[in-house]
Amino acid sequence: MAAKPAWAQRLAGVRGLLLDVSGVLYDSGDGGGTAIPGSAEAVARIKRSGLKLRFCTNESQKSRSKFVGLLQRLGFDISVNEVTSPAPAACKILKERGLRPHLLVHDDVRSEFDGMDTSNPNCVVIADSGDDFSYQNVNKAFQVLIKLENPVLISLGKGRYYKEGDGLVLDVGPYMKALEYACDIQAEVVGKPAPEFFQAALKEMGLEAHEVSGT
Amino acid sequence: MAAKPAWAQRLAGVRGLLLDVSGVLYDSGDGGGTAIPGSAEAVARIKRSGLKLRFCTNESQKSRSKFVGLLQRLGFDISVNEVTSPAPAACKILKERGLRPHLLVHDDVRSEFDGMDTSNPNCVVIADSGDDFSYQNVNKAFQVLIKLENPVLISLGKGRYYKEGDGLVLDVGPYMKALEYACDIQAEVVGKPAPEFFQAALKEMGLEAHEVSGT
Repeated sequence: MAAKPAWAQRLAGVRGLLLDVSGVLYDSGDGGGTAIPGSAEAVARIKRSGLKLRFCTNESQKSRSKFVGLLQRLGFDISVNEVTSPAPAACKILKERGLRPHLLVHDDVRSEFDGMDTSNPNCVVIADSGDDFSYQNVNKAFQVLIKLENPVLISLGKGRYYKEGDGLVLDVGPYMKALEYACDIQAEVVGKPAPEFFQAALKEMGLEAHEVSGT
Repeated sequence: MAAKPAWAQRLAGVRGLLLDVSGVLYDSGDGGGTAIPGSAEAVARIKRSGLKLRFCTNESQKSRSKFVGLLQRLGFDISVNEVTSPAPAACKILKERGLRPHLLVHDDVRSEFDGMDTSNPNCVVIADSGDDFSYQNVNKAFQVLIKLENPVLISLGKGRYYKEGDGLVLDVGPYMKALEYACDIQAEVVGKPAPEFFQAALKEMGLEAHEVSGT
């Protein structure tokens, strides 16, 4: 009997896959971005193979519905309920701990926080805000934090930068670090690489860690 | 013989004073800011006393001439050649090391860098830029750094925040930290608390460290 190829050995016992999106399936950019060649077909093949599939992204500049709409237009077979992203995970934490967020987020992701009490904020949620990372907006978030007795900063991911069009642009991480330094605090990161975030994705797939491989 | 009062004992052997400015002599704010009550008279008394006096500031949002003009209008007896500030110290370093800066600085301090070669930059100089800390401007500085083989980031001070009018606003430090994290580098801080900065001020006074007291 011929030995199984290396990739097949690696996939022995694997029943599901976690796929990253930005930089793996597509690159963001003007007009929404571009699919990485072959990636839409790869997603289709994984789905045909019978493996469970979940998209696990730190995308925090768009709501899941906007993000999924964009990926569908780029040719991907993907739906909102297949996506694990930080904003819903953050909402869960906010509710559990009675936190009222000041949102330093892009307008396109604001709808994920509909229904959250944002009056008299007792924490700051920071996400990849792109052009909305103006001095005025970052200052506002700082001013909320510095007045709190126990400042809580929740960051949707901590990426350094990502590719947009032909160049690299700053992600949420540098701005998280700016607020950490300004207020002498440590942010709580929701999203990759936090173990809780991967565990939530596994739970949504109904699989255990040893049954899942990821990019 | 009566014992000298404590302040007189502390000043024994002192021939000069280094005075901080922002938050000590004045608070910045709309219309230029306001003098802290009694501070202009204190400066006048020090000058009458015969002690040497030097203003040692991390102010990096204005050129020395603009800064001094503002303080004069607020009633202070001060001239440009009595001020040690980070921008001239940074220019000295840039020249010595053949560095061509990309300037992430406020328009009001740009004139301090007149005559520096800013073409094809091989380092970034960051200063308190206020509203000019837009995402676009911070991104541009990041894009210069990330393309360099040996990224050099020179920061004029590393203050967390300062008082402006009734509130606190972000200083250069948080943005320095943002770029440090984005590029996985350490900035070189020019200005307080760097020992070289205080030594430059002492040299300008013609005094040794043990002869000088400061705020």
